[in-house]
Amino acid sequence: MGGSLGLALKRRKLARRVIGVSRSRATIRQAIRRGAIDAGTTVPAEAVREADLVILAIPVDLIAKQGAALARRMKPGSVLTDLGSTKAAIVRRIEAAMPKGVAFVGSHPLAGSERRGLAAAQPDLYEATTCVVTKTPRTNAGAAARIARLWRGLGSNVVTMSPATHDELLAQVSHLPHLLAFTLARSASAQAQRVAPRSFLEMTRIAKSDPRLWEAILLSNRGSLLKAMARFEREWRQARASLTRAKAADLRRWLAQAQRQRERLDS
Amino acid sequence: MGGSLGLALKRRKLARRVIGVSRSRATIRQAIRRGAIDAGTTVPAEAVREADLVILAIPVDLIAKQGAALARRMKPGSVLTDLGSTKAAIVRRIEAAMPKGVAFVGSHPLAGSERRGLAAAQPDLYEATTCVVTKTPRTNAGAAARIARLWRGLGSNVVTMSPATHDELLAQVSHLPHLLAFTLARSASAQAQRVAPRSFLEMTRIAKSDPRLWEAILLSNRGSLLKAMARFEREWRQARASLTRAKAADLRRWLAQAQRQRERLDS
Repeated sequence: MGGSLGLALKRRKLARRVIGVSRSRATIRQAIRRGAIDAGTTVPAEAVREADLVILAIPVDLIAKQGAALARRMKPGSVLTDLGSTKAAIVRRIEAAMPKGVAFVGSHPLAGSERRGLAAAQPDLYEATTCVVTKTPRTNAGAAARIARLWRGLGSNVVTMSPATHDELLAQVSHLPHLLAFTLARSASAQAQRVAPRSFLEMTRIAKSDPRLWEAILLSNRGSLLKAMARFEREWRQARASLTRAKAADLRRWLAQAQRQRERLDS
Repeated sequence: MGGSLGLALKRRKLARRVIGVSRSRATIRQAIRRGAIDAGTTVPAEAVREADLVILAIPVDLIAKQGAALARRMKPGSVLTDLGSTKAAIVRRIEAAMPKGVAFVGSHPLAGSERRGLAAAQPDLYEATTCVVTKTPRTNAGAAARIARLWRGLGSNVVTMSPATHDELLAQVSHLPHLLAFTLARSASAQAQRVAPRSFLEMTRIAKSDPRLWEAILLSNRGSLLKAMARFEREWRQARASLTRAKAADLRRWLAQAQRQRERLDS
């Protein structure tokens, strides 16, 4: 995510200077060579000192702590944002820790892939995607407008909502689907996997995502995820009941409703 | 499926003459124009009389009855096959009805798309895919070899197994994933669907499949499907338990195993 963002910021000339932070000097050198950053450092506090904008592209369970620590080193008038896939816990914790003069606005670009690292970076990753920007009673309006402008500049369609709404909706259309993909990958026997058609590979593609990242995402949005799982289970039980009792008419109606709902997404 | 097959047979010169059957004269004219068939008729019995090979590309709930009826009109030495997504019930019923001198071999090419009709036909649909060819104690070895040669000629990798094994394995890697896609499409609220990322669209793509075809497929493989659903539910309950009790270590192990299993499919 960070590598793609650097490439996109440079290519679209949205930042005068992009400073990358990584624990690895080799990654920094590689990022400079690829044109994703202008310079880099292994010391986060150094990178943020003169920055107008700081973007945290790190796992969700590290964002709040790192964000709170870095905000204290940021200059007055600067803005901090993140790319985390869950928002309520992160936004609440960072907002509580923000020093005067520095603003925080949560972002979640609905882009990315199951692959990680600089080698997977793509400058067009954010184009024609949706980016959620969070708004709370404590959000600074000017900072929010800057962050929205940033994402629009990267080609995203910006949608603003509260962190709680974000987590509720994304549980349904992202966290639940990931959990289903992981579950499906575990459900097929080795013998069955040998005859897996393209649709099976497609439906389990996101189960190739980093388990460490997804453990953090799923646990940090546990409440909404459990609700989304309950929604799923309600539909599943209906399907199961019509299959168990071989109720063709019920199954047909259930399938037709599902198909119509999915068709609507393409229009 | 039928349109793609005609295009592929003609393009690869695997049949001297391809006769198409459709209830619609307009479809027949269109198929001739597209080069999918040499001639066509609305009367199935006419089409099969002189045929060396008859391929039934019709919904699974119609295959057994239609196959048994047509076999009686086929010439001695000819072979009948189908493209049905389930095999046990179809093969059992057709084998019981076969007249002397005509052979039946079940096929299931693991190809296709959620789209139907001649407009969606692609000549390369079967290339680099797997095709299951069924074998039972009643299968004629010569006919089975001919059908396997046909699919290899179309670019498929042929796998031979019993109809029961086919149904058990495909329940896990095709019928269950379809049911999950339909369920997922129904599970997300209208508000959540408005921020659906690419992964959600991908995981529900097959929910755009024809509900009438899938009702027949799911019901005709009910026994194996219910077993595959039980396998899925076992894994799902494990995930749910580790989430409910916020057991990070259990969840991490569960996710990592799922990811490894999925990664193996790409190698």
